[in-house]
Amino acid sequence: MRRCLILAGLCAAFAGSVAAQGNGAALAARQWRQNHERAILDEFFSLLSVPNIARDETDIQRNAEMIESMLEKRGVPAKLVSVPGANPVVFGEIKTPGATRTIVFYAHYDGAPLDPKAWSTPPFQPVLRNGTIGNDGAVVPLPAPGTLVNPEWRIYARSSGDDKAPIIAILAALDAIRADGLRMKSNIKFVFEGEEEAGSPNFAKILAANKGLFAGDVWLTCDMPSHQSGRQLLVFGDRGISGVDITVYGPHVELHSGHYGNWAPNPAMMLAKLLASMKDDNGRVLIDHFYDGIVPLSETEKQALAAVPDMDAQLMREFWLGSTEGAPKHLAELLMLPSLNVRGMSSGRTGLQASNVIPSSATATIDMRLVKGMDPDATADRLINFVRKQGYFVVDSEPGADVRRSHPKVAWITRSLGEKAFRTPMDLPISQEVIRTVESARGATVLMPSSGATVPDAAGEVLGIPNIVVPIANFDDNQHSFDENLRIQNLWDGIDLMAALLTM
Amino acid sequence: MRRCLILAGLCAAFAGSVAAQGNGAALAARQWRQNHERAILDEFFSLLSVPNIARDETDIQRNAEMIESMLEKRGVPAKLVSVPGANPVVFGEIKTPGATRTIVFYAHYDGAPLDPKAWSTPPFQPVLRNGTIGNDGAVVPLPAPGTLVNPEWRIYARSSGDDKAPIIAILAALDAIRADGLRMKSNIKFVFEGEEEAGSPNFAKILAANKGLFAGDVWLTCDMPSHQSGRQLLVFGDRGISGVDITVYGPHVELHSGHYGNWAPNPAMMLAKLLASMKDDNGRVLIDHFYDGIVPLSETEKQALAAVPDMDAQLMREFWLGSTEGAPKHLAELLMLPSLNVRGMSSGRTGLQASNVIPSSATATIDMRLVKGMDPDATADRLINFVRKQGYFVVDSEPGADVRRSHPKVAWITRSLGEKAFRTPMDLPISQEVIRTVESARGATVLMPSSGATVPDAAGEVLGIPNIVVPIANFDDNQHSFDENLRIQNLWDGIDLMAALLTM
Repeated sequence: MRRCLILAGLCAAFAGSVAAQGNGAALAARQWRQNHERAILDEFFSLLSVPNIARDETDIQRNAEMIESMLEKRGVPAKLVSVPGANPVVFGEIKTPGATRTIVFYAHYDGAPLDPKAWSTPPFQPVLRNGTIGNDGAVVPLPAPGTLVNPEWRIYARSSGDDKAPIIAILAALDAIRADGLRMKSNIKFVFEGEEEAGSPNFAKILAANKGLFAGDVWLTCDMPSHQSGRQLLVFGDRGISGVDITVYGPHVELHSGHYGNWAPNPAMMLAKLLASMKDDNGRVLIDHFYDGIVPLSETEKQALAAVPDMDAQLMREFWLGSTEGAPKHLAELLMLPSLNVRGMSSGRTGLQASNVIPSSATATIDMRLVKGMDPDATADRLINFVRKQGYFVVDSEPGADVRRSHPKVAWITRSLGEKAFRTPMDLPISQEVIRTVESARGATVLMPSSGATVPDAAGEVLGIPNIVVPIANFDDNQHSFDENLRIQNLWDGIDLMAALLTM
Repeated sequence: MRRCLILAGLCAAFAGSVAAQGNGAALAARQWRQNHERAILDEFFSLLSVPNIARDETDIQRNAEMIESMLEKRGVPAKLVSVPGANPVVFGEIKTPGATRTIVFYAHYDGAPLDPKAWSTPPFQPVLRNGTIGNDGAVVPLPAPGTLVNPEWRIYARSSGDDKAPIIAILAALDAIRADGLRMKSNIKFVFEGEEEAGSPNFAKILAANKGLFAGDVWLTCDMPSHQSGRQLLVFGDRGISGVDITVYGPHVELHSGHYGNWAPNPAMMLAKLLASMKDDNGRVLIDHFYDGIVPLSETEKQALAAVPDMDAQLMREFWLGSTEGAPKHLAELLMLPSLNVRGMSSGRTGLQASNVIPSSATATIDMRLVKGMDPDATADRLINFVRKQGYFVVDSEPGADVRRSHPKVAWITRSLGEKAFRTPMDLPISQEVIRTVESARGATVLMPSSGATVPDAAGEVLGIPNIVVPIANFDDNQHSFDENLRIQNLWDGIDLMAALLTM
């Protein structure tokens, strides 16, 4: 089944629909869910009603305790684990007699910071809508117990998708498993983090301080949005990241563009030339040695990548694009390569705010996404060396008059990010088993050797556990933005999926 | 004398100090001024105390009426001239029996918009300081009548330099001329505009509606800062201007730089490449036909330019520059060439405000300074054609989904400015006479064929009168910024100069 899927996307679709019938736990969960939709939504709404911004300690504690008691209500011993100054991790554990392996389910219960004014309804007062806001979906009451919810309806609330959905899916799957008397085969651990959206400042410390507690054979990161094709996505790695801020200088005060234009160096133009020199017109990065040391994809990874559905046309339409940067390569392929992206650039003022000046400085913020084999610091070094090669004197603090007077071109470069890529081999027996299990529950999958984004891999780095990302939220869930939402069918599919993985 | 000056800057300095003795009116004005410094400052302070932002009608009217009565007090018939919706021009006229020519003195009594919070003392409460604020100059009382003011002291107030200083210098010179019984040889007209800092929206209309009233043989624009060398500056022209705003597009919403980086076109990088393609590393503009049609400098203009003191080293030190754009050419030379300047550029956000996105668009605001022979619209057309040549589909209104989807690269370009250059020939008899008169009063001059900046030449365009700019304010007067100030010696020199020009 699996080989068939990798080699030909077409047969995978068929295999999927058969396979979905094949996982007993998933089927049982589906049936149980259909009889308890209102109860599941009630519990989800109560969890979504507790504000969960990482910096708000009291709220965070309420979330953690609520989830702890939700686990214990289901017979799962749970506790809060932390280090000084950190938001607690909710830890739960099911010890299965005779089990020889341990599956760790990770999610995070904190949500991205927000501006409530931007939301259509308050972010912590969850509502059900009979469609997306973009399609004029109206707020509707929760359906009466015993009736089915339209699966295309959506729940609007902060963290409805990112990342309380997997927590509710796990809890519902546990209920279904218990109600059906299904047996587990593995030990199960739950690890629900409380400050992921704040950049996980303490998560690695918490793991390091409790290595035995968090140990396991596979770490399922239940986070991120699904694939745009609607197929179940499994992601085996991520891109790392290295970031720099670059500021280049003109005159130390803004000068009149009439009285000094053509004479005083214009830092906006200098920055434009510098940035332009970093990439060719096809998106290839021109920094010396940028691509050195990259670990190539394995044959299995290449085959998986070749089977990823081509979403380019649909996405180009959605994002109003008339071209893509690395064409004819497709999105999935391009995400396997490192990138250099300008997050922003600024100099002087534009439009109605512009004035007749030569600006004093120009700044760009850059992120470079790294693939396996690239080091964040070494990559930043290569960028800095490249800037030097363009004639810049590079400093790591704001340059004063003397430095600026004594060098034709000065760049102040600071490093802002640093994270290595990870890639869990798809060939590992545990990887293969996760794939088989997911396909048996959800049918055709999309298997990405790596995400394009950066998902900190504390499990791999601290504990050495293979990490596989298992998303359930809809790809258009507005995560990190206002009006975050979850499509009901994604929650239902997530419950099937968690039931299958819990009984793996 | 004049030939000597043009051919060798060194002899000009000596010639100047002798010549300053040579102009009787200038000498008389100096003597008269030394006996009336306090009275001159009192009158100046009363004029500076009336707020003069062009949009504040009541204030503007008070300024106009005050200047009108200041002229009439000196026996100069004056009136306010306007068109509907415009701030009035204060017009005054001295008819000299037997005179065969008319000299028009132009200045403006409105001041640049300001933010009072940025000022060290309120902008419309003039104060005298015993030095610049940068050198810890303290506020000091006005000296007692009959005592001399330290000429290095400064008056701080909006319009102290730009542009009420010439008005007060003219009024004081008139007093000195009357007190000494000096005779005028020309008819004199005074034209004091009230909305120059608002872009002179009505000045050409006022001139066109009153051509006879404003007619004359030479138009002396008493505005702009002096030369940094301290020598008296005369400017015979300006650079014109043509401006565009360019916006280029990526995805219509900001996209996650991890999930889409390398695939979604980055508009910041696109704009960087576009801007970088517009100029070479030595500042030469690469837009096709950009330099076509330029009227070259005459031999006299070239000689004048060659005699302009080289201020590059001093200015580089002052502005913290380690290089200049068009080196080894000097500032004065470079200002005779057209320029392309990026006033500002913006895309996404930088530094602490940056987020992990591919921005949705990127904008640059550009001004191009034009020299004689270049047309503002044709120059903007050339830029637009150049952008097209780089593969962009160019639109003149914000592009929607269809346009953006159907073209690989889309640029929205709007035109924002348009003004031709002017250059009054230095060889005209009246030009030569103005130069001789100024040198007889002030010694060595700096003669610029053109300013680098744009000084609307309504006199030339509407009335066909040769226009010569005669600045008196110190070059470091902070005009258009906060803490605008006038060096006392510049005012005293201005009175000498105006006395000489009034009796020319």
